[in-house]
Amino acid sequence: MANITKKVSWSSRADESGAPGEGTPLLNGAEPRLSRQLSGGGNIFHIGRLSTVDLEEEMTSEEDSLRGRPKEIPHNEKLLSLKYESLDYDNIENQLFLEEERRMSHMGFRCLEISRWVVCGLIGFLTGLIACFIDIAVEELAGFKYQVVKQNIENFTEVGGLSISLILWAVLNSAIVMIGSIIVAFFEPIAAGSGIPQIKCYLNGVKVPRVVRLKTLVVKVFGVICSVVGGLAVGKEGPMIHSGAVVAAGVSQGRSTSLKRDFKIFEYFRRDTEKRDFVSAGAAAGVSAAFGAPVGGVLFSLEEGASFWNQMLTWRIFFASMISTFTLNFFLSIYHNNPGDLSNPGLINFGRFETDSVAYNLYEIPLFIAMGAIGGLLGALFNVLNYWLTIFRIRYVHRPCLQVMEAMLVAAVTAAVSFTMIYFSNDCQPLGPEHTEEYPLQLFCADGEYNSMATAFFNTPERSVRSLFHNQPGTYNPLTLGLFTLTYFFLACWTYGLAVSAGVFIPSLLIGAAWGRLCGILLASITSTGSASSCIWADPGKYALIGAAAQLGGIVRMTLSLTVIMVEATGNVTYGLPIMLVLMTAKIVGDYFVEGLYDIHIKLQSVPFLHWEAPATSHWLTAREVMSSPVTCLNRIEKVGAIVDILSNTSTNHNGFPVVVEVTLGDEAPKLCGLILRSQLIVLLKHKVFVELARTRLTQRKLQLKDFRDAYPRFPPIQSIHVSQDERECMMDLTEFMNATPYTVPQETSLPRVFKLFRALGLRHLVVVDDSNRVVGLVTRKDLARYHLGKHGLEELQLAQT
Amino acid sequence: MANITKKVSWSSRADESGAPGEGTPLLNGAEPRLSRQLSGGGNIFHIGRLSTVDLEEEMTSEEDSLRGRPKEIPHNEKLLSLKYESLDYDNIENQLFLEEERRMSHMGFRCLEISRWVVCGLIGFLTGLIACFIDIAVEELAGFKYQVVKQNIENFTEVGGLSISLILWAVLNSAIVMIGSIIVAFFEPIAAGSGIPQIKCYLNGVKVPRVVRLKTLVVKVFGVICSVVGGLAVGKEGPMIHSGAVVAAGVSQGRSTSLKRDFKIFEYFRRDTEKRDFVSAGAAAGVSAAFGAPVGGVLFSLEEGASFWNQMLTWRIFFASMISTFTLNFFLSIYHNNPGDLSNPGLINFGRFETDSVAYNLYEIPLFIAMGAIGGLLGALFNVLNYWLTIFRIRYVHRPCLQVMEAMLVAAVTAAVSFTMIYFSNDCQPLGPEHTEEYPLQLFCADGEYNSMATAFFNTPERSVRSLFHNQPGTYNPLTLGLFTLTYFFLACWTYGLAVSAGVFIPSLLIGAAWGRLCGILLASITSTGSASSCIWADPGKYALIGAAAQLGGIVRMTLSLTVIMVEATGNVTYGLPIMLVLMTAKIVGDYFVEGLYDIHIKLQSVPFLHWEAPATSHWLTAREVMSSPVTCLNRIEKVGAIVDILSNTSTNHNGFPVVVEVTLGDEAPKLCGLILRSQLIVLLKHKVFVELARTRLTQRKLQLKDFRDAYPRFPPIQSIHVSQDERECMMDLTEFMNATPYTVPQETSLPRVFKLFRALGLRHLVVVDDSNRVVGLVTRKDLARYHLGKHGLEELQLAQT
Repeated sequence: MANITKKVSWSSRADESGAPGEGTPLLNGAEPRLSRQLSGGGNIFHIGRLSTVDLEEEMTSEEDSLRGRPKEIPHNEKLLSLKYESLDYDNIENQLFLEEERRMSHMGFRCLEISRWVVCGLIGFLTGLIACFIDIAVEELAGFKYQVVKQNIENFTEVGGLSISLILWAVLNSAIVMIGSIIVAFFEPIAAGSGIPQIKCYLNGVKVPRVVRLKTLVVKVFGVICSVVGGLAVGKEGPMIHSGAVVAAGVSQGRSTSLKRDFKIFEYFRRDTEKRDFVSAGAAAGVSAAFGAPVGGVLFSLEEGASFWNQMLTWRIFFASMISTFTLNFFLSIYHNNPGDLSNPGLINFGRFETDSVAYNLYEIPLFIAMGAIGGLLGALFNVLNYWLTIFRIRYVHRPCLQVMEAMLVAAVTAAVSFTMIYFSNDCQPLGPEHTEEYPLQLFCADGEYNSMATAFFNTPERSVRSLFHNQPGTYNPLTLGLFTLTYFFLACWTYGLAVSAGVFIPSLLIGAAWGRLCGILLASITSTGSASSCIWADPGKYALIGAAAQLGGIVRMTLSLTVIMVEATGNVTYGLPIMLVLMTAKIVGDYFVEGLYDIHIKLQSVPFLHWEAPATSHWLTAREVMSSPVTCLNRIEKVGAIVDILSNTSTNHNGFPVVVEVTLGDEAPKLCGLILRSQLIVLLKHKVFVELARTRLTQRKLQLKDFRDAYPRFPPIQSIHVSQDERECMMDLTEFMNATPYTVPQETSLPRVFKLFRALGLRHLVVVDDSNRVVGLVTRKDLARYHLGKHGLEELQLAQT
Repeated sequence: MANITKKVSWSSRADESGAPGEGTPLLNGAEPRLSRQLSGGGNIFHIGRLSTVDLEEEMTSEEDSLRGRPKEIPHNEKLLSLKYESLDYDNIENQLFLEEERRMSHMGFRCLEISRWVVCGLIGFLTGLIACFIDIAVEELAGFKYQVVKQNIENFTEVGGLSISLILWAVLNSAIVMIGSIIVAFFEPIAAGSGIPQIKCYLNGVKVPRVVRLKTLVVKVFGVICSVVGGLAVGKEGPMIHSGAVVAAGVSQGRSTSLKRDFKIFEYFRRDTEKRDFVSAGAAAGVSAAFGAPVGGVLFSLEEGASFWNQMLTWRIFFASMISTFTLNFFLSIYHNNPGDLSNPGLINFGRFETDSVAYNLYEIPLFIAMGAIGGLLGALFNVLNYWLTIFRIRYVHRPCLQVMEAMLVAAVTAAVSFTMIYFSNDCQPLGPEHTEEYPLQLFCADGEYNSMATAFFNTPERSVRSLFHNQPGTYNPLTLGLFTLTYFFLACWTYGLAVSAGVFIPSLLIGAAWGRLCGILLASITSTGSASSCIWADPGKYALIGAAAQLGGIVRMTLSLTVIMVEATGNVTYGLPIMLVLMTAKIVGDYFVEGLYDIHIKLQSVPFLHWEAPATSHWLTAREVMSSPVTCLNRIEKVGAIVDILSNTSTNHNGFPVVVEVTLGDEAPKLCGLILRSQLIVLLKHKVFVELARTRLTQRKLQLKDFRDAYPRFPPIQSIHVSQDERECMMDLTEFMNATPYTVPQETSLPRVFKLFRALGLRHLVVVDDSNRVVGLVTRKDLARYHLGKHGLEELQLAQT
């Protein structure tokens, strides 16, 4: 994750607003706008409780509280990057668009609707296939690796010289991880990590460069195979969500810009609004394939992304999810020589929890809640450690070769630690007839026994989770579990953020399952000494499940969707209530200390992320304070030279421009009549849609919506467009192309109201007008994301060109 | 349902708009506005494909297609009632509100958040208790009734004279149903039916009078007990949703207007926005209690109601759902002498489906889809029959005593038909040791056997559903199932819409389970003749489940939420895919013929219901055509007499008024500066917040937000407020009370864009302004709900004062 900002070739266009940055300091050192406005502000501020002095004091104390952390942080939480552009989740309703819509018949819309379903089906199918490919590849390669190492260990157990096995294991792991890390670090750094924060940002409306490209997908898929096979403490589930999203973005556009193939289909879907809907479906399909949780997938998409719930859209997303699980199940059932059996869940299989054996009782609920609190604490610890580590990485480990070396080091250390743990463990268990271990290591155990620590370490994490959930009571001794929890916790924490494709779901589940099972065993031993009726506590698998939920909830802090994912992965709705209670407790406890892991990483990237609601205490701010002003406006019929100059101005880099009616009187400010985007102007300039002073068009054909769609989404920079001196003197008529009915708000509108409008409609620019409809300012995503509820009340983030 | 419009004392305030009904015909005979506008319209219409002629032709042909139906329908689908007001799901941000928000500290918002959680917990708890009460009451009373009748039948089986048993049964049923029907028909007609359409409307933003009152709840609860005990073909699940909603509306307000008790708590929540959120939680808690489906409940609320998804809100709704299931389970486990066992689902218990016994296979999927299509067809048939029946009821059965008599007749006929079916059935089954029938009827069967038809008819519907799902293969013979399906289908169809509180979920499930089991048996018999490997078809319970899903989906047409509800009620996620496929097929097939049952009833009530999106082909309409104009505006400082006159004008009955800056120049239209509601003006008049010409206030104290909250939601009518002749000469300063920043759109905004803004933000009034911010029109819910996608393209509904 950390290296994303380093490697990506940032687009030169940055600031959304059409205002020349009067209040937007371009460097770190600039004063926060909030305090300046407070001191110089109007009479409206006397109402707010937060006086100037208070605020400045609070800011200082906030900085004090940072003392415990490493100093001179280049990326800190108090910055908002100007690098990120927004996506346009509001349709650009210009004349061309309206004409097309009006031309379309009822049947045309039906066909569109059907093709949406087809696309969703395809997304689900392809996502399922990818999941299937990853699963089989990991299974085969990891199986081969474990066989080789097991063979080696068995050879050397008797004769001594196990250090050679250790070296073999470590070298194998490092080599595999090296491949995975090289393709990520050198070819596509955005493919690092789980991809969930990036998809969250995309669905939120932030344009994260290269996040939904084909190359990213390829690197992601091979990267995750290498990471898992390389024995890192990672899962292959998170990356599935990213993969599904890329598939969706690709399929829905009916072309691949990377492969330079245009299938001339689904052209209608070539805009941000439609694409976002499909990406939601893709992310849902990814979750669905990863956890066998179609409903959980839909909820994930909705919780993380969509702000507007639409019945048909949700139903389509659900369809994609279902098809994805179905495809995965179908092909995996063939692979497992059990064709046609569709009752298997997704990539991670929690195994079957039977209701009888593990029913819970009322008096267990406080225990579950306590475990939720432990999960919240451990999750917060994990997040804090990872936060520091990420900052360290941003400062010192930003060169690709260093990143690869770190990944290799982690792989080697993981192998070494695992080996040491197994070596010194004397937890031998009898190898029963129904044993489920794939690669039982005998090591120093008696014949017919196997090393219990090895089931946890010498296995893919998915299998380890399952054995922690389902192995018979007594399979693990408490010391094994305790040591495993401790080591795996730090390994997983170190691993997340490496330049490899990898998810954090499975490691979290594994840590939680380990300490959960430990809790179960301890409870059983406490109660069995007291009385004989310990049968209810007898099954530690139940506590492993609760622990897993608590740990995962404490780290990622998802709510409803995670509950449903866990319930669906468990395959038994009986656990709904305990899982919900545990996740709720973990979230409350964890949120007290630090944010969720994904939010931390989003913040460290200084992404202008819009939360669900404006900060509660922001009612005293109005559009007047929030907006950027003055605004660079264009006339409805504007000189080409002026447009080129405005677009070329690198110091402002605006992306949207209010269009105003030409001023006739001298003094009066011009009235708003539309809004036009940089991307539209670029297309107009490229096609030279100029009007000479004699008002005859220079272009032969009328510009159509198709021209804009063809250019979408990679509009050329202004520098690549040559405009001659003669052409500079021509005029451009924007009437047809501008959005003639942009949403506007008066200056007195409160921030929460502006926020609600902006968020609910997925806007990119919101024009602020005075009482005569004259443009006075422009509100963009960054203007709203800047206000943020800190520990001590409302805080304002600085805008920086990081 | 049908009688709602008759009984309710309609509020005299009706039209949302501030426009004097220029285009809103107040009687049925008025011409549709669309066609008039098309013929007289501007030049913009030549673009649309739908020319004037086309449209009128289509309207005629549409009327032709109605020929097959009864003529002279007083309520038809082409009308939109002016009687329904809207709710304000957008906060009224006036100065009072903003001052209060600004005064509130960060801690204050925390406390509010905590009290929201407390309220949700209370809602869940109380809803669970109510469900528990209904369940136990039905269990006890129905048990008593069946024991009496069973005793009687057994006495008369040997000696002859079973007709006396029939009469006893019929009279018992009629008497019980009479009680239930009387309280509904005479005391609270809105409590009739399942209440789901009403809650749908409420969440959509339509103010359905008396729908969330305490009296409604009481009548609903006792009504549903009577209906179920009275042996009607009804369920107690639908009414739970309504009950939960009423509980939520009551608890969240911290007072009961009916009981005249004000606990002075939760005063902050006394507005439509907050109340809606709690009602969503209540509806979810109701679903959760009814089906043991907390996630399904949340999805129901979201699918039917909330348009804006908010993570914390959803999480709170989920909390209420969980608490509700938990409470119900806890108390029912005590009732069933198994305290502390929380693994039981809700009111309807589908019983346990074990994964092993009923796994499905790939080649069964086409069968499932075919069953979905059957469900869609049967559902459409059910809906069409019920539609005709409802129209018949509206015309001829509108007096309460007639309604009670009809309900009694249905009860008697149900008993008679059931008895006849049982009497003539010769499907005897051995009474095994593990028989699950509560009241086995021996009748003419041999000793040790029981009548199989009686398990379906002589039982509460919930038990019948469970035995159809789980009884051993061979328990029912095909003839029994066929006859049962046939009779129960018509009985259920006749029953829905009676003046009793009753749901349609369980009857639908029962019909579907019966024909589904029949399908399963037929499949087994077909395959067993071919080969011996019929074990996969052996379990008809699986097909019963699929049939139940198909039938329910065909009738109610819910999507994601129904899938999840079914999965949660089944307790096994394995069936997710087949259930989804079946529901999808049923919806597609059913939608081809007719709408869902709830939508039909909403349409028959002429409710201005806003769907998810504007009709796809409505891009050629703009705000100019849609809006009502001219608008009655108020000056910022307005004469009291003028306000009283405007409010008293019964021919217009506006609810919202744009406030304009006083006109200084003679000709220019005034500029918009705010929006004020009728309810606010009423409160101002009541508290006599007048300014004399000398500009001294007459009131002692400043009016506070509390005064508005105290009056909420039952604002007095204007007639009850006495304003003296002197007072009429005073002025009223609206500045502090009006919403100073209403959302506005330009006249050229397309209908889909207006619709999106309106729907996403839950608006009640949207001001249309020209390019100088002067008011030119007002868009209200009815203006948008009027446009509707019919079979032949866009149609316009007439507004009528029905």
